[in-house]
Amino acid sequence: MSTVTIIGTGNMARGIAARALAAGRTVELLNRDAGKAAAVAAELGGNTTSGAVGQVPSGDIVVLAVPFDAAKEIVTAYGEALAGKTIVDITNPVNFETFDSLVVAPDTSAAEEIAALTPGNVVKAFNTNFAGTLVAGEAGGHKLDGFIAGDNTDATAAVASLMFDGGMRPLVVGALKRSRELEGFQFLLMTLQANPEFETFNWNTGLKVLV
Amino acid sequence: MSTVTIIGTGNMARGIAARALAAGRTVELLNRDAGKAAAVAAELGGNTTSGAVGQVPSGDIVVLAVPFDAAKEIVTAYGEALAGKTIVDITNPVNFETFDSLVVAPDTSAAEEIAALTPGNVVKAFNTNFAGTLVAGEAGGHKLDGFIAGDNTDATAAVASLMFDGGMRPLVVGALKRSRELEGFQFLLMTLQANPEFETFNWNTGLKVLV
Repeated sequence: MSTVTIIGTGNMARGIAARALAAGRTVELLNRDAGKAAAVAAELGGNTTSGAVGQVPSGDIVVLAVPFDAAKEIVTAYGEALAGKTIVDITNPVNFETFDSLVVAPDTSAAEEIAALTPGNVVKAFNTNFAGTLVAGEAGGHKLDGFIAGDNTDATAAVASLMFDGGMRPLVVGALKRSRELEGFQFLLMTLQANPEFETFNWNTGLKVLV
Repeated sequence: MSTVTIIGTGNMARGIAARALAAGRTVELLNRDAGKAAAVAAELGGNTTSGAVGQVPSGDIVVLAVPFDAAKEIVTAYGEALAGKTIVDITNPVNFETFDSLVVAPDTSAAEEIAALTPGNVVKAFNTNFAGTLVAGEAGGHKLDGFIAGDNTDATAAVASLMFDGGMRPLVVGALKRSRELEGFQFLLMTLQANPEFETFNWNTGLKVLV
């Protein structure tokens, strides 16, 4: 059973930690401020450990629960220390100045850009899940769908297993470049939150493939 | 209340006709083969009328329920006859040779390419709805979400009204260029149908934003 390191202590870090703990995984939280990481780890309970960004992550799976620019900086700084690990990119590289496009070119994705900077096996996951739904473990009474894209099948399987054990429905959709569609669609959904016509679409929605 | 012309008599044409009839709309079916259109119109019942592609559509809303290449040919052939009408593009321009990308460039969409060929007000809609779910009017026990993108607010409102009256939940997501994300994500979902790992994902799934 893979162990999990989460880099970041924001809402997404807490939401993903909630699923990982529900899955019975050992969780380590790292933050630039180790004191902050320790405080959040104590809140989360379980056997959550903590530390500072820069120390080698103990987890087999390393979740970059930080914005796109920070994710690039962090994998670059870790360099070879991430070799062999499953690196989870959760980012939505929205251009928040225009709110009309992503900051990555349309023929690539944040996940592919991060993958170019690390020897780790990058997997796109959790980018279509809002933090509150991860804490709750459901949206609208349904199990959460977890879309997963990646080029390394062991790595995508490890993330799928984490989600499954955490009560989600993992959907491994294909190669890492499918992140383009995952990032594009979540961007579209995020624009609805800013649209007054969708007053009930806040941070509570869940993207689902109903069968 | 807008009247509706549907060009095509395939599964999507029938599914959209089912929603339009449920919405109480007058429906006209046009096919290259007028006899085929008449036969399907008789099957659908209601006051469905029929005719041949080439005659001026009677509907305020004209749904191009045909593949992308045919849609481009049809709007080109109609030319100015479509001016002022709401033209609904439902296509998913998947590259079926590779099943790994769309046939349109990543910085455009089928909807935008069709819009460049017609004076009508092009609206992207129904591309994330499979035909069987449109006939059923639901997926997994839920109301169908109908994602709508367009640059003309009267045209998007007309399509939203058609969907709403037909028992769907319309979601007007923004300008016509948001079709890029709608087409991209539906392409991703279509690849899952071809993936043996998703044995229950056939033509029965419904993409939904749960609240």
